[in-house]
Amino acid sequence: MVVSKSWTMVKHFDGVPKPEEFKLIEKELPPLQDGEVLLESVFLSVDPYIRLYSRHLKEGDVIMGFQVARVTESKNSAFPVGGYYVGNAGWTTHFISDGKGIDPLLPEWPESLQRSLAIGLVGFPGLTAYFGLLDVCKPKEGDVILVNCAAGAVGSVVGQIAKIKGCKVVGSAGTDDKVQYLKEIGFDEAFNYKTVSSLDEALKKASPEGYDCYFENVGGKFSDVALLQMKNFGRIAVCGAISIYNNAEPPSGPYIQLSMIFKQLRMEGFIVTRWADRYVEGQKQLLQWVLEGKVKYHEHITKGFENMPAGFIGMLNGENTGKAIIQV
Amino acid sequence: MVVSKSWTMVKHFDGVPKPEEFKLIEKELPPLQDGEVLLESVFLSVDPYIRLYSRHLKEGDVIMGFQVARVTESKNSAFPVGGYYVGNAGWTTHFISDGKGIDPLLPEWPESLQRSLAIGLVGFPGLTAYFGLLDVCKPKEGDVILVNCAAGAVGSVVGQIAKIKGCKVVGSAGTDDKVQYLKEIGFDEAFNYKTVSSLDEALKKASPEGYDCYFENVGGKFSDVALLQMKNFGRIAVCGAISIYNNAEPPSGPYIQLSMIFKQLRMEGFIVTRWADRYVEGQKQLLQWVLEGKVKYHEHITKGFENMPAGFIGMLNGENTGKAIIQV
Repeated sequence: MVVSKSWTMVKHFDGVPKPEEFKLIEKELPPLQDGEVLLESVFLSVDPYIRLYSRHLKEGDVIMGFQVARVTESKNSAFPVGGYYVGNAGWTTHFISDGKGIDPLLPEWPESLQRSLAIGLVGFPGLTAYFGLLDVCKPKEGDVILVNCAAGAVGSVVGQIAKIKGCKVVGSAGTDDKVQYLKEIGFDEAFNYKTVSSLDEALKKASPEGYDCYFENVGGKFSDVALLQMKNFGRIAVCGAISIYNNAEPPSGPYIQLSMIFKQLRMEGFIVTRWADRYVEGQKQLLQWVLEGKVKYHEHITKGFENMPAGFIGMLNGENTGKAIIQV
Repeated sequence: MVVSKSWTMVKHFDGVPKPEEFKLIEKELPPLQDGEVLLESVFLSVDPYIRLYSRHLKEGDVIMGFQVARVTESKNSAFPVGGYYVGNAGWTTHFISDGKGIDPLLPEWPESLQRSLAIGLVGFPGLTAYFGLLDVCKPKEGDVILVNCAAGAVGSVVGQIAKIKGCKVVGSAGTDDKVQYLKEIGFDEAFNYKTVSSLDEALKKASPEGYDCYFENVGGKFSDVALLQMKNFGRIAVCGAISIYNNAEPPSGPYIQLSMIFKQLRMEGFIVTRWADRYVEGQKQLLQWVLEGKVKYHEHITKGFENMPAGFIGMLNGENTGKAIIQV
């Protein structure tokens, strides 16, 4: 008999999630039916979107999220024991699947490459960066790209892909170490938005001529300032707005219509699922860039399933450089 | 010796423009040089954008604007006396041109059709509706389109073109007479935003399933409510934001990033000049629709150049149904 542990949301988060709002539950899993497999989570993903979408959970629900999981028992020959799959089973140590909703790693995945990348750079965060930048921002060679949360799981990939595409890349992050990291991975300009005396001046200094593309992960006051620095016909990909996820109701800022009109800006919100039929294309490209060393990665690993809420809260507080991962 | 009268902006408008902020000046025009023509304004256009762009004027400048003008004297054989042209000479009765920046009416313009339409339905307001709707919103047959300031020079054309394209059209306007007018020209639903008990409910009632396209002329609080009613992958064409033009600094409203993300909305601001190489295409199509009776028009004519500021202020206050025109 296998006991699965899961983290649930006891009550809806009020502001920044607090440890007491999470509860660990245990459940005995039933014996496998024909066609089913038992999987054990090896790496789990904590991402900003979970804070946002937690408002759609019911209190007591297991929290949503992806994992890399290993098959430990199988009654389905298509999913042999020992195989690794990406699941979307939430914050849980073990789960049963009939094979739907679990995806194998790419067949060309080298044994030497850590499998946690399948929920990071070569998984949804990487795909979000890949499609959001290329399909929404549509950068051209020579364009100037602004990305915030630039040292995060998505932002760090956005910047590196933009460099591959011949753009100038400016990144904003919240610690000096992250700024240093951004410079190491090839950002042309990077600054610590928490310590600059003026965000406006920092953006102007980094690119006096303004920005063609703005990959938005932060929202709120950052966006007020950044919008004013866009060039004519600038494109804004709204991927996230972490600065306002903890607010029950969106806070207020200046209406943007005049900037949108004067500069003829295009702003588009997106969710990576719209490119579901192109995931493999994106994953193959990302994996290739990783193996060629053209896109570098960094993971912030929290060890122990019991520490998953702390890892999540830490990620929301910006403690991670690169992808925040929970290693069971 | 010809004396030209012009309206200048004495000082930058503070809130709603007031009569004392305008001043009529007179200037003697010099004799024509070879290649020059003298034009006399017949109809002048007052439009919301003038309020917005007045912030770029210097105090004492002649106010910007288009006119239909007639050549009264010519030293340029390409521009014969008696010819009608659309000029961009500002609020002025007479002006000299070397032929650059004045455009003839379409050659197929019938003698019977009032020439004021060349600065209305078949001019920039019509082109703004035509390109903004078709190129920015990109409506598909069966889409539901929301347009505000729907009885205005642009909105009334947007709605009618959307009907031609097989869409359902919902319009918002500020008087019951305008609502009646919208129904007469084919809007499927129309309501008076000033008298409905709830804008949210009015929008839901007009289209319970939401909106595919939103042609934005108003901005501000209207946009807060409308954005929440968009369907997934909705398109928002930001043409204007008349509700905030009178504010020196943009007022504040809730940040929109979450709606943009959840519904994967695309919002684009535009200025009609971006389609300068396609004006003739648009004008020909608009003229054809007018002549076929497929697009109807209404003009709100203020007589007398001396009444131009009053006509402008009245237009900003929503006194016009259809295009606001000054007839000299």
